[in-house]
Amino acid sequence: MDTSRPARVGRQHILEVAERLFTEHGYRATSIREIAQACGVTNAALYYYFPSKEALFFEVMQRHAERLRQRMTEAGARTQTPRERLAAILREYTHIVTDQDSPFFLLRRGARGFKQRKALRTRFGRLMTTMLAPMQETLAEALAAGELRSQPDPAEAAAMLIGMLHGLVQHRRTCTDHNPPTSDEDVDLIVDVFWQGMSVTTC
Amino acid sequence: MDTSRPARVGRQHILEVAERLFTEHGYRATSIREIAQACGVTNAALYYYFPSKEALFFEVMQRHAERLRQRMTEAGARTQTPRERLAAILREYTHIVTDQDSPFFLLRRGARGFKQRKALRTRFGRLMTTMLAPMQETLAEALAAGELRSQPDPAEAAAMLIGMLHGLVQHRRTCTDHNPPTSDEDVDLIVDVFWQGMSVTTC
Repeated sequence: MDTSRPARVGRQHILEVAERLFTEHGYRATSIREIAQACGVTNAALYYYFPSKEALFFEVMQRHAERLRQRMTEAGARTQTPRERLAAILREYTHIVTDQDSPFFLLRRGARGFKQRKALRTRFGRLMTTMLAPMQETLAEALAAGELRSQPDPAEAAAMLIGMLHGLVQHRRTCTDHNPPTSDEDVDLIVDVFWQGMSVTTC
Repeated sequence: MDTSRPARVGRQHILEVAERLFTEHGYRATSIREIAQACGVTNAALYYYFPSKEALFFEVMQRHAERLRQRMTEAGARTQTPRERLAAILREYTHIVTDQDSPFFLLRRGARGFKQRKALRTRFGRLMTTMLAPMQETLAEALAAGELRSQPDPAEAAAMLIGMLHGLVQHRRTCTDHNPPTSDEDVDLIVDVFWQGMSVTTC
C-alpha cells in the first residue's frame, strides 16, 4: 500500500466505512485508527481528508441527511396537491425519525459525547435545514398558489409542523405506559390541524 | 444537634436548600454531603427523607414544576375567553422555558448526567403533565363549549401546541445567526395557527 498517495482510497469510501462503524459501535467507541484500518489506510491518509473525528462524523451525518431528504422528496413526488405532498413527506419523516434503530438515531445518539456545543448546534442547524427542505418547498409552493398565509414563513412553518409531531411523540413516550407508535393516521391528523390553521380563511 | 431525630429539620427546608445548591452549582457538582451540611444535618438525616440524590433531585424538580404551573394558571386567570387564556398561558410558559438562566433550565441541564434513562423518562413525563395541565384544562374547556374539535384530545393537543413553540425556538436557535428571542408576537402567531387549526369549521 502506497500511503504517500492517500487519494487512492477515496473520500467516499472512507465516509461509507465510517458511517458503518459509527452506526454499529457508536461515535465514542469508534476511533480514527479503527476507521483507517477498516479502510486499509494509515491514520495520516485519513487525516488528509478529514481534520478530526468530529469533522468526519459531521460529514457522515450530512451525507445521511441528504439521503433522507431524497427519500422524503421521492415520497412527496407521488402526490397531486401540496397538501397531499406535505402529508406524504411528513409520514416519511416520521418513519425515519421514530425508528429508534435507524442510523439517524444511532448517529444522533453518538453526538451526545461532543464537547463543542456551539459547533454542534451550527452543524445540527445545517442538518435540520436539509431535513426540513422538502416540507419548506411544499409550503412555499402552497403559499405562492395563495392557499396558505404568509406568516409564519415556510421555513418557520415547517419547523412548527415538525414540532407538532415531536411534541406528540414525546408526549406518548413519556406520558403513556404502552408508548404507542406514531401511525400514519396520527401524522394525517397533525397535517389536518396544521393545514387548516395555515389556510387563508375565506369565511 | 440531635441527629437521632431527623424530623426536626423539615423536608421542605431540605428541598429549598437542595434547589438552591442544584441551581447554583449543577446536579453533578452538588453532593448529598454538601446539602446535608448546608441544612445543618448529617447525611443519615437527609437519607431519612430521600433514599438517593436522584430521588431528592426529582422532588426538587416536581416542586419547581408545581410552582411554574401555578404561575401559568395565574397568567391565564386574567383573561376572558379560552383562546385568550391559552395565549396568556403559553406566553408565560415561553418566558419560563426560553430563559436559559432560569432555574428550570439549570435544573434540566443537571439531569443530563443521569444513568437511569427509563426512570428519568417516567419522571419527566410527570413533570411535563404538570407543566401542560393549564393548557390542557383550557383546551378541555373550549372543547366542552363546542369551540374546538375533539381529535386530537386536549392532552395531545397541548403537547402539539408546545411542540410548535419548541420547533420554532429550536429553528431560530440553530438556523439563524442572531438567534432572536421568542417574542409575545411569536407566541400569538403560534396560538393563532393552532386555534384556527383546532377550530370546529363552520363553513
